[in-house]
Amino acid sequence: MSTYSDQSAVTVLGLGPMGRALAGAFLDAGLRTTVWNRTPGRDRELVARGAVGAGSAEEAVAASDLVVVCVVNYDAADSVLRRDAVTGALKGRTVVNLTADTPDRARDTASWAAAHGVRYLDGAIMTPTTTIGTPHAVFIHSGPEDLYQEHRPALAALGGTHTHLGEEIGRAAAYDIALLDIFWTSMAGYAHALAVAQAEGVTPRELAPFAQGIAAILPPIFGETAENVEAGVFPGDGNPITSAASTMAHIIHASEAHGIDASVMRATEGLARRVIGLGHGADDFSRVTDLLSRR
Amino acid sequence: MSTYSDQSAVTVLGLGPMGRALAGAFLDAGLRTTVWNRTPGRDRELVARGAVGAGSAEEAVAASDLVVVCVVNYDAADSVLRRDAVTGALKGRTVVNLTADTPDRARDTASWAAAHGVRYLDGAIMTPTTTIGTPHAVFIHSGPEDLYQEHRPALAALGGTHTHLGEEIGRAAAYDIALLDIFWTSMAGYAHALAVAQAEGVTPRELAPFAQGIAAILPPIFGETAENVEAGVFPGDGNPITSAASTMAHIIHASEAHGIDASVMRATEGLARRVIGLGHGADDFSRVTDLLSRR
Repeated sequence: MSTYSDQSAVTVLGLGPMGRALAGAFLDAGLRTTVWNRTPGRDRELVARGAVGAGSAEEAVAASDLVVVCVVNYDAADSVLRRDAVTGALKGRTVVNLTADTPDRARDTASWAAAHGVRYLDGAIMTPTTTIGTPHAVFIHSGPEDLYQEHRPALAALGGTHTHLGEEIGRAAAYDIALLDIFWTSMAGYAHALAVAQAEGVTPRELAPFAQGIAAILPPIFGETAENVEAGVFPGDGNPITSAASTMAHIIHASEAHGIDASVMRATEGLARRVIGLGHGADDFSRVTDLLSRR
Repeated sequence: MSTYSDQSAVTVLGLGPMGRALAGAFLDAGLRTTVWNRTPGRDRELVARGAVGAGSAEEAVAASDLVVVCVVNYDAADSVLRRDAVTGALKGRTVVNLTADTPDRARDTASWAAAHGVRYLDGAIMTPTTTIGTPHAVFIHSGPEDLYQEHRPALAALGGTHTHLGEEIGRAAAYDIALLDIFWTSMAGYAHALAVAQAEGVTPRELAPFAQGIAAILPPIFGETAENVEAGVFPGDGNPITSAASTMAHIIHASEAHGIDASVMRATEGLARRVIGLGHGADDFSRVTDLLSRR
């Protein structure tokens, strides 16, 4: 097999909503696209649009130098890739694994790939299926820089922005985990705020514009917080964590007075109280990152 | 006492960082400003700028038709306002209570005010001390509309935007609690994400721009979620809560593998699992508000 890959062909393993969106974008960009899914029948629409529906994973893998994997998690990816017939067919080819999971699973997969002569890039998709093939898609990648550059043209068919975060294979998953942590925690706060507001007679539609105002102030605060944590300074002037903890107690009280579970805010208050207990009550809330990072 | 208040004078009770900022803005706008704080000495800089430093709370209250209160919580506000001498001096005057606390405390204070002939507005300040007197300040108010309109000119001296949320006295506190819930929960997610990222070798400065990207996608999602909750529909197509729960499990695993407390995400995952347990796994995450609102 040539070290110059055939940029006009790609295989997509996994045809859930995201896998189908990826395969559709490759087709739209004119790449010869081979598709496969463990559960049959998922390729129907793609085949109608010109994709090659492979009869097996090993047949799918053999069709292209570039194999994009997008399944539910790395257990599912392993169960496809680590069968002998598939592993053998992958030798010398490149796997770009866009499946979401933890950094340690990405590293484990990279070790497996190295041991079997499979070239390996890890990645994550930060935006919904509807953005794939559009300028709004956001992809992050990690792994060997030269391998990333080699497949950059094919990946460009997926649209959006692609960022190579470094050669350490776990970086894409680390960013993915951290960013989804922010997203889902924020959503939990919003879902809870809507429930408390409703119990107080404030409708979701009434609260939403103000909630959007809160979201709008986060980016500069995220920037300052990162600088503080990086520098190891936690200036609480004007907004010490003791004051944040009082606010949190008010939120918990208002929630529980309506019988509304406040477990997420209780856990948040617990972190603030631990910082205060350690004697850092005059510091700002970013001291929580320092608390969490202690060994 | 006339029912037309003297718009050129104001008293500020409580001279913490926020109270000082409020008094400074009134002074800058040319209002005759009387100030008082339980702990003496906090008025020095304001007096040098032209404020009248009152010797007691009752003397401070007697100096103006409009009394703005901004102390640490309603226990502190009560301990000032509910002393007989102060309550007596307040008769016929207007209290605008910008102290942060829960809606039930605002309602309780309104009942006390009504029983003692004190005219009462409740409010909250949604932005930091540095915004006071600038266009960036955000104030919310609730209580009698005519009373709000009467004092609107004096309040305008504080700068920013002022929104009257309705006559029900608890509304400002309800919005305040809900919005701070979103803010602090999001900050807890970010503080945790920074810790997990650091443990994976990703620095705060590296993560910050991507975190800001996550914050930027929240406003439209907040809008859609509010519409869903209002309509009682929870369309999970493309992003069911089962998928969110898998992601949460990955985040918890990655965090705890580094010995990093994941209590906030564990509580968040708990809410998602309860929704799934109730048979709503195909719905989207906004079903959590419905779960929390159940009696």
